[in-house]
Amino acid sequence: MLQFKGLTKLADFRPKRRAAVFAAIEPGKASAVVVSHLPNLRYLCGFTGSNGVLLITGRGATFYTDPRYDIQAAQECDCAVKVVTGPVWTAVARDVRRKRLTSLALESEHLSHAQWTGLAREFGKAVKLVEAKGVVEDLRAVKSPDEIARIRQAVLLGSAAYESVLEAVREGMTEQRIAAEIDHAMRLLGAEGPAFETIVAAGKRSALPHARPTAAKIRKNQLLLVDMGACLNGYMSDMTRVAHIGRPGGQARKIYDAVLEAQLAGIAAVKPGARCMDVDASARRSLKRRGLDRFFTHSLGHGLGLEIHETPRLGGKVESVLKPGMVVTIEPGVYLPEFGGVRIEDTVLVTETGVEVLTPTSKDFAVIA
Amino acid sequence: MLQFKGLTKLADFRPKRRAAVFAAIEPGKASAVVVSHLPNLRYLCGFTGSNGVLLITGRGATFYTDPRYDIQAAQECDCAVKVVTGPVWTAVARDVRRKRLTSLALESEHLSHAQWTGLAREFGKAVKLVEAKGVVEDLRAVKSPDEIARIRQAVLLGSAAYESVLEAVREGMTEQRIAAEIDHAMRLLGAEGPAFETIVAAGKRSALPHARPTAAKIRKNQLLLVDMGACLNGYMSDMTRVAHIGRPGGQARKIYDAVLEAQLAGIAAVKPGARCMDVDASARRSLKRRGLDRFFTHSLGHGLGLEIHETPRLGGKVESVLKPGMVVTIEPGVYLPEFGGVRIEDTVLVTETGVEVLTPTSKDFAVIA
Repeated sequence: MLQFKGLTKLADFRPKRRAAVFAAIEPGKASAVVVSHLPNLRYLCGFTGSNGVLLITGRGATFYTDPRYDIQAAQECDCAVKVVTGPVWTAVARDVRRKRLTSLALESEHLSHAQWTGLAREFGKAVKLVEAKGVVEDLRAVKSPDEIARIRQAVLLGSAAYESVLEAVREGMTEQRIAAEIDHAMRLLGAEGPAFETIVAAGKRSALPHARPTAAKIRKNQLLLVDMGACLNGYMSDMTRVAHIGRPGGQARKIYDAVLEAQLAGIAAVKPGARCMDVDASARRSLKRRGLDRFFTHSLGHGLGLEIHETPRLGGKVESVLKPGMVVTIEPGVYLPEFGGVRIEDTVLVTETGVEVLTPTSKDFAVIA
Repeated sequence: MLQFKGLTKLADFRPKRRAAVFAAIEPGKASAVVVSHLPNLRYLCGFTGSNGVLLITGRGATFYTDPRYDIQAAQECDCAVKVVTGPVWTAVARDVRRKRLTSLALESEHLSHAQWTGLAREFGKAVKLVEAKGVVEDLRAVKSPDEIARIRQAVLLGSAAYESVLEAVREGMTEQRIAAEIDHAMRLLGAEGPAFETIVAAGKRSALPHARPTAAKIRKNQLLLVDMGACLNGYMSDMTRVAHIGRPGGQARKIYDAVLEAQLAGIAAVKPGARCMDVDASARRSLKRRGLDRFFTHSLGHGLGLEIHETPRLGGKVESVLKPGMVVTIEPGVYLPEFGGVRIEDTVLVTETGVEVLTPTSKDFAVIA
């Protein structure tokens, strides 16, 4: 199960990615790009440790890290590696001066202001620091075939864990216990861990979109919402399903059917060239026909990959368009504070011609006996 | 087991903490302090969600968050709460202008440079932004009685989980499986989760201080290093133990005994007024007597509490002194690349007169049959 064979190595894509990052800065604006955000490092040079800096110039890339990662960096990185004692940034600064680089594009959304001012002080007037925002993130939005294969694996693993635990869920179990069993099942199937804190919320608590599992026992006639994902080989999955303890009444079924209809409408709107805001609107329009759109209080979805929330966001004001190779969630919800909430979420792939739903788990309204 | 009764509420300490943070900025340097780092928010106003800003002036404190946390913020915070739609920082900026504050001390280590420049643009010349570094962190280094009680609980829970899993460990289990079982045991005992990614490293891999658990099966005649902690009610614990699969040979026993001796020397040096560097030196001196100090390649320990790494660091160049109420780890290690590594780590409390070891787990060299 969950085998994974015959794929091009991720490393094959990395030199192109680094070249694309360098090309993305305006000519003349900076003579090098410096990357330190960990998911971006993994994407650009393969490093999976916790400390490093990548310097990309027009002539190539060098990765700097500390002696803890000596062996690991040599194994993982497909570019030049320098292992340095003392602060990594100091070594980078030394090389920047030696190479006579006069301007650097830095990830201003990921460096703290204290780090930035420290670097500005270190370089003085010799090197200009330029704010680069979202350069690597924009590139990461379109996944390579190998990344898609890895996300597919994470999705399958997450679904397998959910389905195995759901079979064992019984009235009287606590939300916390169910969450713990899901996380454990993912680990036993080979995941590094959950992609985010697993949400298990029963009854009225299912109306809180960011509920944390509590010690409350699940009881008859409650909705049971589970929002979960796996992290496998660095890539994330994300799925939400809602079950019912005992046979659902009319209200629960009505909401469930409306959310499912909206989710299918959202999925149907996914295709290359579609604007994110229009995909969001498709699901919202569907709920409006049932008079439930005002209870859908968040965006329709988000990209995912090496992080659980990536570009693009499928929100009401996002004008950017979907491209083949993007992987996003479609997750409308309806939340009635005194009753409970339903959210249904799949991870989907934008294909050359439309959409492929990666999540295999049934969307029938599951009943827990 | 693990009961927790009759304690003063953590909230009782918070108004004093907020006053101390305001008092810590130099008079005249800033007219308000703005806090947004999540552990600092939890410490100062009780909020445990994922988005908010706390504005502290000489006249009191206001906490700003978004509508997702409407109910939660009202329940958790012991200061004024404003729930705002749209970006939280925009609402804070509006109030700063309305209150005619002319300078703000901001957490420059926790705000990204992009956030900082965005705020600077928003305020223009009307409001001066001042870099505040480590103000709340320094305060957090000395724990209140209630925080100590919570850390004590996290420590007991971590030890209980470790001991229950160690009993079940057998030759042939994978590092990943053992890590998964430890994490699961902590969750079943009530933890929110592991305090950090649990380290399980066997054989030569135990010589990597930051090893990640692999699919390698543990075998006879290997060292088995486990470095783990629990997060319970927001507070962390941290412990390392090393066992041996089968009866240890002379080399393994020699290293184990040397590290244990060094760890006890480190603990014996902990007392109010001791400099961090001197505590570190005590353990290092002990290893030197065995000719093993050059294999001890990291600092002796670190503070912990709401985060796993806090002030103070017990490192060779840290001149600050220990104070009653500080909670730190003592964790010397010896790493022989071709053989394996031993690290022994307890969480300890600096008392009025010396030290109390909180970790109850035996430090005898455990043998797995």
